[in-house]
Amino acid sequence: MTGSIDRAGCEWLQYDYDPALVAGDRPGSFTMWRYRDLLPVPDGPVRYPLPIGGTPLLPAPALRQAAGIPQLWIKDETRNPSASNKDRATALVIEDGLRRGLDTITTASTGNAAVATSFGAAAAGLRAVIFVSTGCQPEKLALMTEAGARVFQVPAGYAAAVDLSRAAAREFGWLDRNTGANPLTIEAKKTVAFEVWEQLGRRIPDAMIVPVGDGPTLVALDKGFAELVSCGLAERQPRLIGVQAERCQPLVKAWLGAPAGPAELDPAGTVADGIAVLRPAIGDAVLDAVGRSGGAMVAVSDSALLNAVATLAGRAGVGAEPAGAAALAGLESAVESGLTDRSETVVLLVTGREVKAAGPPADPSRVAVVEKLDEVEQALAVS
Amino acid sequence: MTGSIDRAGCEWLQYDYDPALVAGDRPGSFTMWRYRDLLPVPDGPVRYPLPIGGTPLLPAPALRQAAGIPQLWIKDETRNPSASNKDRATALVIEDGLRRGLDTITTASTGNAAVATSFGAAAAGLRAVIFVSTGCQPEKLALMTEAGARVFQVPAGYAAAVDLSRAAAREFGWLDRNTGANPLTIEAKKTVAFEVWEQLGRRIPDAMIVPVGDGPTLVALDKGFAELVSCGLAERQPRLIGVQAERCQPLVKAWLGAPAGPAELDPAGTVADGIAVLRPAIGDAVLDAVGRSGGAMVAVSDSALLNAVATLAGRAGVGAEPAGAAALAGLESAVESGLTDRSETVVLLVTGREVKAAGPPADPSRVAVVEKLDEVEQALAVS
Repeated sequence: MTGSIDRAGCEWLQYDYDPALVAGDRPGSFTMWRYRDLLPVPDGPVRYPLPIGGTPLLPAPALRQAAGIPQLWIKDETRNPSASNKDRATALVIEDGLRRGLDTITTASTGNAAVATSFGAAAAGLRAVIFVSTGCQPEKLALMTEAGARVFQVPAGYAAAVDLSRAAAREFGWLDRNTGANPLTIEAKKTVAFEVWEQLGRRIPDAMIVPVGDGPTLVALDKGFAELVSCGLAERQPRLIGVQAERCQPLVKAWLGAPAGPAELDPAGTVADGIAVLRPAIGDAVLDAVGRSGGAMVAVSDSALLNAVATLAGRAGVGAEPAGAAALAGLESAVESGLTDRSETVVLLVTGREVKAAGPPADPSRVAVVEKLDEVEQALAVS
Repeated sequence: MTGSIDRAGCEWLQYDYDPALVAGDRPGSFTMWRYRDLLPVPDGPVRYPLPIGGTPLLPAPALRQAAGIPQLWIKDETRNPSASNKDRATALVIEDGLRRGLDTITTASTGNAAVATSFGAAAAGLRAVIFVSTGCQPEKLALMTEAGARVFQVPAGYAAAVDLSRAAAREFGWLDRNTGANPLTIEAKKTVAFEVWEQLGRRIPDAMIVPVGDGPTLVALDKGFAELVSCGLAERQPRLIGVQAERCQPLVKAWLGAPAGPAELDPAGTVADGIAVLRPAIGDAVLDAVGRSGGAMVAVSDSALLNAVATLAGRAGVGAEPAGAAALAGLESAVESGLTDRSETVVLLVTGREVKAAGPPADPSRVAVVEKLDEVEQALAVS
């Protein structure tokens, strides 16, 4: 900088202008397609139009100091296009569908996967057909219809919504993005492991703490780190510590071998709606992965979740929804129970933040209540 | 991919594992610090801990087709950490403050700048003191206090909030991030011009359409493109087309040389709260930049703004707030009035999306109503 001039009332700083002030190389890029040799993506250009993955691994100095863990890191998945890690799975499933010439994608979801699917389908020019329980928040519905998705509310709840979405995919030849059902969801999310390893300078962390709902996020990390070992690029895997909400902790109870009471299986009873899954789609695989890694499952209270949201915002500048902040909420109990210690390299996976629709409430012409497959067909045929 | 195995009930795709499946180079990175030789950032490591800028320039194929503009691009600033372009200015102002050893940053804001400052300060370990009008939305207040900011509500409105924030900065030696007041806000936001130029393959677009509130976003683009010319890296600047809401269009009226009626100067009357500024901080510089570039100022209705939000979501998979979608809302009238034509390279700047606090309402102990500087000092001393 060499001084400043006044430009119509504005102070403009001045420099010794020279072409060399802008680097001559191309700006770098970092997306999950970097790992396409470990993804089922054949040759040819990637068709999915939004950049996905390559999210930051944040050192979070103030949080490190507050937690007393000098090698604490935040893998910030809120920087994906729809602000959650669901965008990875959505992108790979759609990439596969575009290559196969399909025009409709379907999923059931408690929220973020549906939002990611609605926006991802819009970007790619596909139709999204979303199945939710009738209890789904109106604000999330508004986000889905804002992106042009068709939404079906299923009175019998989330499990029935999954069944209906999967049946529709089979019957109508749609892309099935249901979590745990399509192996591409695991393939996509495993790229988080590759990124963490590269961002740590090709090192494996000692432990990684992860929110667990249906399970694919954690299982995909297991597979990703295992593949780094299989490739001869790493010698070991990190301990995986899965976190659930106290009010909906089927996998923590299963891990402990203890029966779960009704107060521990109440999805509507926790603020962490994004991980409040009564019957996790791939729960067995979660328990298998956690066990092999030397990790554990831990449960956290709603007040710990809300504290974690505030701490991520106030100490790291990261906005997270309660489910997205579960890893930080689980950190303290992981340290206390000896699952990790303060001298280790620990990565917290922050899976998502709150977004909201900017426009009006959900377009009623795009939302219908259905109980059976023929009602779906009828509703879509009419409009 | 070579096949698949069953792993605890999950289908795991298999590959011919080999170290060469992961590229040996380091993953690329792309942030606004790439342009530090054109920023007032002396040598030494950047201290600001969040990656900023390097946002995608999206080709948006479905939107291109719908608009009939094959070279239409979206510069998606919603991918910044607090989901708006305000993060750039925040980061550079804080970087400067960290180097000068300051511990408090202040700004007045209608919303996004305050949220960006609150989260950015938290990430950097600074205290944020925010001044808003008493009409500021409770949800935005909750975001600010979630990140630990102190918020002062000023009954006399936004202009008085700016005055108080600037007076506090002078009196207490705080970092002044007020838009238009600190030349670093322009310096930071000009990096958008550098990025667009690089992302287009070192080419200047024909036109760039930009939401205008206080003015720094547009003025910074003017400066950035001018500096590319000064560096000998470009031969011309794009036409800059500024967009305001019909209900609050002081700069459109000034551009047209027409008096503005009360219905055109009603900040509370539009959905585009992010650009509803009655007395733009650097309005003269906006009019100067628009004029020199061969562009214009255009006004758009609220229904056009909401349509633009829906079109960005449904055709491009980009979530925007109404103010953030103003560039798309202005595109049609820019084409109709001959400011650009469908064969040109046109870039829409999408400045921000809606985010919301995940936790409880604003912490009342962090919010106070003040009218004078000594009340600010008193409130901060007490807590």
